[in-house]
Amino acid sequence: MEPKEISQAVISRLPRYFRYLGELKDEGVERISSQELSTLMKVTASQIRQDFNNFGGFGQQGYGYNVQYLYSEIGKLLGLDKTHHLIIIGAGNLGQALANYINFERRGFIFEGIFDQNATLHGKKIRDMEVQPMENLERFVKENDIDIAVLTIPKGGAVKVAEKLVQYGIKAIWNFAHVDLNVPEGIQVENVHLSESLMKLSYNLRES
Amino acid sequence: MEPKEISQAVISRLPRYFRYLGELKDEGVERISSQELSTLMKVTASQIRQDFNNFGGFGQQGYGYNVQYLYSEIGKLLGLDKTHHLIIIGAGNLGQALANYINFERRGFIFEGIFDQNATLHGKKIRDMEVQPMENLERFVKENDIDIAVLTIPKGGAVKVAEKLVQYGIKAIWNFAHVDLNVPEGIQVENVHLSESLMKLSYNLRES
Repeated sequence: MEPKEISQAVISRLPRYFRYLGELKDEGVERISSQELSTLMKVTASQIRQDFNNFGGFGQQGYGYNVQYLYSEIGKLLGLDKTHHLIIIGAGNLGQALANYINFERRGFIFEGIFDQNATLHGKKIRDMEVQPMENLERFVKENDIDIAVLTIPKGGAVKVAEKLVQYGIKAIWNFAHVDLNVPEGIQVENVHLSESLMKLSYNLRES
Repeated sequence: MEPKEISQAVISRLPRYFRYLGELKDEGVERISSQELSTLMKVTASQIRQDFNNFGGFGQQGYGYNVQYLYSEIGKLLGLDKTHHLIIIGAGNLGQALANYINFERRGFIFEGIFDQNATLHGKKIRDMEVQPMENLERFVKENDIDIAVLTIPKGGAVKVAEKLVQYGIKAIWNFAHVDLNVPEGIQVENVHLSESLMKLSYNLRES
């Protein structure tokens, strides 16, 4: 076996398992077989077993998996047993929408600050945060133990802002800017390119 | 060869090719080899050639691809030579952010209407659209030749709303609700599960 390099495709599927297991747990289901989970999630049972085997298999015994245990283990893998401190760069519509999205906080993703270079936005309250100028960024990141930055600015400035964020100590960037960031090895980037998602839908619509 | 079933993984990569080719075109680059494109995009040249071979290869001859031709062909594949008519269901922060995102229109995705079940929002202007009650949905979809619905409502109501949309003739759903929709074969769904994307980032941050 190779030394535990788990593919991003497998990792991409973990949150969906987590969601289904959370729903099963809320419904009071205690155990579930890979076959039942397969039917529910519309993926093959063999895919489920293969995915879980990347993490030691989660101890399926006798009749299937313990739902509570599996939910909690996958949650830990996803880092949901820890609190994350986030800032948003870009207080436009999308930045404001994300700041107001309450469900992230339930999972331990706490928005601590929001920044914009547009002076007319400075001081504007978004939830309980005042929009701050970019000049505050470095000090704020360092003083507030920020680990994730959310980039909701136009593509033009995004690459440079990402470089600065890395200098200031940010370890992970959730990137909504429609550009590929150029960050050093070890810095995590997760892209949400909305227009690319819409184009993929449009492709499939054209084909159908 | 099998009858032209192109994997969703390949399709997912098309918009990124389209983006890079658009930038090359804007910079006045006329031809590019798969090797140069590979360096620029940080994917292997063989992946690029394999991806393009799904669509007949786009006529690479002599020194590489014709940028303008490749850009335009991929654009057509993505349905960007046509105009799409969209509605947004859910006039909350995210729905409003998407409605205000001007770049979609440049690509031919035109927002025609926005709907919400919350009566206090009805009549509120978002760009040039008034938020409409859900009761208007059926007539509006049929009269305005709507082909794509954007779902930005909480997961609770999303499955039922999607079923209605399909009844009314919608062929494609861009789904931001954090739930898997249950639609008939032939209806296209593209999910944007923001919290799952954030969890994936969190997983990678924990591992790094």
